[in-house]
Amino acid sequence: MNAATLDFAAWSQAQLAKVERALETWVPVDAPARLGEAMRYAVLDGGKRLRPLLVLAAAEAVGGQPQAALRAACAVELIHAYSLVHDDMPCMDNDVLRRGKPTVHVQFGEAQALLAGDALQALAFELLLPGEDVLPAAVSARLCRLLAQAAGAQGMAGGQAIDLASVGQMLDQVALEDMHRKKTGALLQASVLMGAACAGVTQPQRDALADYGAALGLAFQVVDDILDVVADSATLGKTAGKDAANDKPTFVSLMGLDAARAYAQALIERAQAALARSGLTDTRALAALAQQVVQRSH
Amino acid sequence: MNAATLDFAAWSQAQLAKVERALETWVPVDAPARLGEAMRYAVLDGGKRLRPLLVLAAAEAVGGQPQAALRAACAVELIHAYSLVHDDMPCMDNDVLRRGKPTVHVQFGEAQALLAGDALQALAFELLLPGEDVLPAAVSARLCRLLAQAAGAQGMAGGQAIDLASVGQMLDQVALEDMHRKKTGALLQASVLMGAACAGVTQPQRDALADYGAALGLAFQVVDDILDVVADSATLGKTAGKDAANDKPTFVSLMGLDAARAYAQALIERAQAALARSGLTDTRALAALAQQVVQRSH
Repeated sequence: MNAATLDFAAWSQAQLAKVERALETWVPVDAPARLGEAMRYAVLDGGKRLRPLLVLAAAEAVGGQPQAALRAACAVELIHAYSLVHDDMPCMDNDVLRRGKPTVHVQFGEAQALLAGDALQALAFELLLPGEDVLPAAVSARLCRLLAQAAGAQGMAGGQAIDLASVGQMLDQVALEDMHRKKTGALLQASVLMGAACAGVTQPQRDALADYGAALGLAFQVVDDILDVVADSATLGKTAGKDAANDKPTFVSLMGLDAARAYAQALIERAQAALARSGLTDTRALAALAQQVVQRSH
Repeated sequence: MNAATLDFAAWSQAQLAKVERALETWVPVDAPARLGEAMRYAVLDGGKRLRPLLVLAAAEAVGGQPQAALRAACAVELIHAYSLVHDDMPCMDNDVLRRGKPTVHVQFGEAQALLAGDALQALAFELLLPGEDVLPAAVSARLCRLLAQAAGAQGMAGGQAIDLASVGQMLDQVALEDMHRKKTGALLQASVLMGAACAGVTQPQRDALADYGAALGLAFQVVDDILDVVADSATLGKTAGKDAANDKPTFVSLMGLDAARAYAQALIERAQAALARSGLTDTRALAALAQQVVQRSH
């Protein structure tokens, strides 16, 4: 790890500005029949952008190609955004508030929300395939493979299916972690691995980053469960207390609040240890992001 | 064009057997919480498989790599299948019958149908990215790009958004064709171009095949509109007369039944002319598929 201190606030502000500009450019205004409008509403002007920051931090750690990293960062965010649009729909979580704004189906209607989510998923892959003159095909293919696996039946979509089926069920910790590893963990881990795929890395480095991503992903969810209990809707920008209201198993309901907090902290320490083990020279941004995951208030 | 007669029935039977076997293998049984079951229900045991046949016929015409072609054929079918699942949902067409069976949301619930569609889209890309040992990255990237563009906001999803917005509207022929070029035409054309992308083709060959695909795609929709008027639900395997009932603009409502039939025939002749112009040696399967599109009864 580099001994010099990273000004994380300045670093993340600079990265976020790049990401926002790129999303603003790449999410189309010209898609027909208000579809572009719904897609932009779902993506722009909100969101912590944790996944893009993870991509960019990992790319920085490995010396990845910046254009590839920026495309990967935006692609992951589009997958995340589409999943929120579909998740919020009446047949899923039926949520009307997201990032402090009406959800997409409230604003544009259910059919348009469904299509906007579908189109955002396709756009995520399009962003990774700008052509040989911009990205070598080998990099495009690697990034697309990581993203497709993380989004699909063995990743995010599969985790959501488990989540649906688990309402009112008593899950033990193994089952709860399996659900979250798929539902949110897969895409968070893919963010790190996609950043790493923007350069050549050794297998031990990739393994260490995969472990960092897995630990951070799980910590993120534990903290999410804690915040659902302790924060209010205004701070969260979404409806608080929903898990308990929906009778969903959480880390807090399983282990209690104090143990959940300790577990999140232990996971972040595991993530930091993985970074130290990676042998990469500058993992300061990745380290700071891990800290942020446990310290966040929303 | 090759002078020898193609036994199209035997050819398509052999191709369909390959496609069914591949889909059977590649659409996962092991996806969690019945998600795999819903995905397989949506994909297996039904469907004309027109898009896979177009991929395989085009690949055959250009001497494309068979493994690439089979993956492309299945990937296109998964995108088609996911679009039907989402299309049938209550917030879209609210259809309960598809290929003579209850639609996915009727069978598995709306939330599961939404997720199954989402996961099928991701799986389509996964199939195209088996790794360098199976497909060169350049081929994977080319196939993924064609598929993502055809599925997204400027293709299928965009066309569906126009379709939604056009209920009760008087569209002229230009607007109607623009909608269908996106909604169904883009994926049909992409099928042809993905088949062609399984080998190296010249730009004039690609242009000719693109024109074949565009003409065939439009003819397909014109025939669809005709069948919606003249066929019954049992033959169609879906609800007949829906367009008129839903006050949707169609080629029949726009130009009348006889003119629509003549238009479909003219489009197929344009498709055949494009094949003749392509200079490819064996376009018999593509020619036969074009014939089938106008002669089909469902």
